[in-house]
Amino acid sequence: MWSDTKVSKQLGIKYPIIQAGMAGNTMPELVAHVSESGGLGTIGAGYFGLERLEEEIDAVKQLTSQPFAVNLFVPNKQRLLPAQVDLMNAWLSPYRRALNLENPVINLSQDQLLEAQIDILIKKEVPIASFTFGIPDKYLIRRMHEHDIVVMGTATSVAEAAANETAGVDIIVTQGSEAGGHRGSFMKENGEYPMVGNISLIPQVADAVSIPIVAAGGIMDGRGVLASMILGASGVQMGTAFLTSQESGADIAYKEAILNSTDTSTVLTNAFSGKMARGIRNDFINYLSEFNGEIPDYPIQNQLTSGIRKASTEQHNDKLMSLWSGQTPRLATNRKASKIINTIVDEIEEMNKNGIRR
Amino acid sequence: MWSDTKVSKQLGIKYPIIQAGMAGNTMPELVAHVSESGGLGTIGAGYFGLERLEEEIDAVKQLTSQPFAVNLFVPNKQRLLPAQVDLMNAWLSPYRRALNLENPVINLSQDQLLEAQIDILIKKEVPIASFTFGIPDKYLIRRMHEHDIVVMGTATSVAEAAANETAGVDIIVTQGSEAGGHRGSFMKENGEYPMVGNISLIPQVADAVSIPIVAAGGIMDGRGVLASMILGASGVQMGTAFLTSQESGADIAYKEAILNSTDTSTVLTNAFSGKMARGIRNDFINYLSEFNGEIPDYPIQNQLTSGIRKASTEQHNDKLMSLWSGQTPRLATNRKASKIINTIVDEIEEMNKNGIRR
Repeated sequence: MWSDTKVSKQLGIKYPIIQAGMAGNTMPELVAHVSESGGLGTIGAGYFGLERLEEEIDAVKQLTSQPFAVNLFVPNKQRLLPAQVDLMNAWLSPYRRALNLENPVINLSQDQLLEAQIDILIKKEVPIASFTFGIPDKYLIRRMHEHDIVVMGTATSVAEAAANETAGVDIIVTQGSEAGGHRGSFMKENGEYPMVGNISLIPQVADAVSIPIVAAGGIMDGRGVLASMILGASGVQMGTAFLTSQESGADIAYKEAILNSTDTSTVLTNAFSGKMARGIRNDFINYLSEFNGEIPDYPIQNQLTSGIRKASTEQHNDKLMSLWSGQTPRLATNRKASKIINTIVDEIEEMNKNGIRR
Repeated sequence: MWSDTKVSKQLGIKYPIIQAGMAGNTMPELVAHVSESGGLGTIGAGYFGLERLEEEIDAVKQLTSQPFAVNLFVPNKQRLLPAQVDLMNAWLSPYRRALNLENPVINLSQDQLLEAQIDILIKKEVPIASFTFGIPDKYLIRRMHEHDIVVMGTATSVAEAAANETAGVDIIVTQGSEAGGHRGSFMKENGEYPMVGNISLIPQVADAVSIPIVAAGGIMDGRGVLASMILGASGVQMGTAFLTSQESGADIAYKEAILNSTDTSTVLTNAFSGKMARGIRNDFINYLSEFNGEIPDYPIQNQLTSGIRKASTEQHNDKLMSLWSGQTPRLATNRKASKIINTIVDEIEEMNKNGIRR
C-alpha cells in the first residue's frame, strides 16, 4: 500500500499527508478534520502565548482522538536597533493613521517561551511537535523523547537536514523553494539562505540522511504527493491546499486572493515579519520594496506590522494583509479538508492502478 | 510501457529523455551517443554562425542516423548604450590585462541569423528544432512545419506555455527554477521574470495546455524522470546530468566544479551574458556583484566577457568561467551518456515493477 510509509507508521496516521502549521489560520476544526480524515492536522502555534496554546490543544482534543501536531518556532538571535525601528515606524505611519492605530510596543521576551510551550505539549500529551526556523536544543529534544513526543524539524538544504538528523530529530520536513509562508531556513551558505526547488531538494536530502523525509512546497494534489514520494519522501506537508479549505481560518479576502492567483503571483519578501516568506504580491509588499533602510529582524518587524495586518483583515482588505501562498495557487480549491484528502487518495490509487498516460 | 509517451512518439525516439542544447558543450559525440542510446541528442547551436552550424550537423549525422535536435536562440530587442559598455569595459580591465586580452568589438548583426539558421536546418533535414528566449514568429514556424520539422518551445510560466501553444509550437519544454544555465523566460509578470519550481510549474502547465510537455530543471535520475511524468510531463530534458558525462565538451575544471558542488552552490546571475542564468558561484560572479552600474543586455555583456571566459577555460581556471549548473549537482556523475540513460531506464522499470518503499 502506497500510504504505509515510515512517516505514517511513526505518526500513527493512515495517509502520510500533513496539514502545515500555518500560524494564525489553523482553526481547531481544520486540524481535527484533517486528522479525522486520516492525515495529520497541525496547530500553528508559533505566535501563541501559553494560555492560547492550552486552549487550542483542548479545542482540538474535543473534536478528535486522532493524532495531531503542534508547530512551534525556534527563536533566533534578535537584533533590536532603536534607530531602525524609528525609521520603520515613520515609514508605516501613513497606514497606521489611515487605520487609527498607535505605534506598537516591541516585546522581545520570547527567550523562555519555547521551553514553556514544550512543557504544555508534554502536560497535554500532544503526540507530535514540529519546529521551524531552527532546531530545538538537545535538552529539549531529549525531554520530548522522554515523553514519547515525535519531533519533526524543518530543512531547506541538505546541510540543514543533516543538522536536524545529528540533533536527534525524528522526521525532517524538507521545504522547497515553492513553499508559501515563512522560509524555515537557519543555515546560510555563501551568505545566502537556501532556495532549492523540490525536484532537486528531495532526492539530495533522501540520499544524505537516514531518517524519513516529509516534502513541503507546491504540493496540492495526488500528482504532487506521488511525485514527492518517488523523489524520496515518505510523506508530504501541504499548506496552501488547506488554507483555502472550508475549515481554514483564513479571511475570505485571503482565500479569494489565492483562488484568483497564478503560478507567478507570489514573491519572496521580508516586509511583513522581518523574515523571508513567500506571499502574493500586493500593495504593502510594493510599498515596502521602496523603503530605503534596513527592515528590522523578526520578530520586531512582525510586531511593527501586526496591527496594520489585523485591522486590514477585519476590513477584508487584501492590499495590506500578508497573503502567504506557495507557487501552485492554480490548483487551490475551496472544499472541505476531508474532500481534499479523499481526492488525493483517489488520484494516487487511480495512478497506481491504471498507470500514467502521457 | 512508461516510455511510450506523446513526446517519444512525436520525436520518433525510444525513451522520452532529451539532452539539453547546452551551447558550447554539446560535442557531436555527446549528441549522437544520446540519440544512439534511445534518447534525443541536441546540438546547442545558439551561438553558432552558419558555417559552424552546418559542420556540427554533418558531424552528428556521421555518427548516428537516429533523430536529433538543434537548439536555437530567438533574438530579443537589444539595447546598446555606449556609456554602459565603456563602464563595463573599465570594470573588466583588470581581468583583461591579466589574460592579455584586448577590448572586444560588439557585434549586433544577429537579426537575420535565426532565419538563416532555420534555412540550414531545412536544407540538412534536421528533424527537430528547439527554441529558447522566445517564440519564433508564425512565418518561421509554418516554414518548419512545411518541412516536417517538429518545433519545441521553452516556457517558464503558464502564460509563456500558453503563448507557445497559440503560436503553433508542437511541444513545450517547461523550465523550472531549478534549471542550470540561461533562463528561457520571455514574458515578465509584475515586472519580473518567472522563477517557478518544477513541482508547481509542471502540473499547472499540464492543466492549461493541450500539447505535450517536456520537463526541465534539476532532473538527474530515474526518480526525477518518473516524478516529472507523474506531475504531467510526457518527457524530460536534462542538462547538468549530461554536462559531466564523458562525451561532454565541458572543460575538466568545469566538470570537476559540478561534481564537487552541493544543492546550495548555484546562484542566479546576469554577470556573464547580460541574461539571467543559474551557475555555480565563483570569483567572477562575486566580483560583478559589486559592480555599481547596469550590466549591458544580452548579447552585449556576453561578448564583453567572452574572451575572459575562453582564456580562463584554456587555463582550466574555474574562478572566471561560467559554471552553469542546475540545483542537483550532488547527483551528477562522470559516466558515458549511454550509461546515464540506461541507468535511468533501469531505475524507472525497477520502481514500476516493485513499487516504492518509503
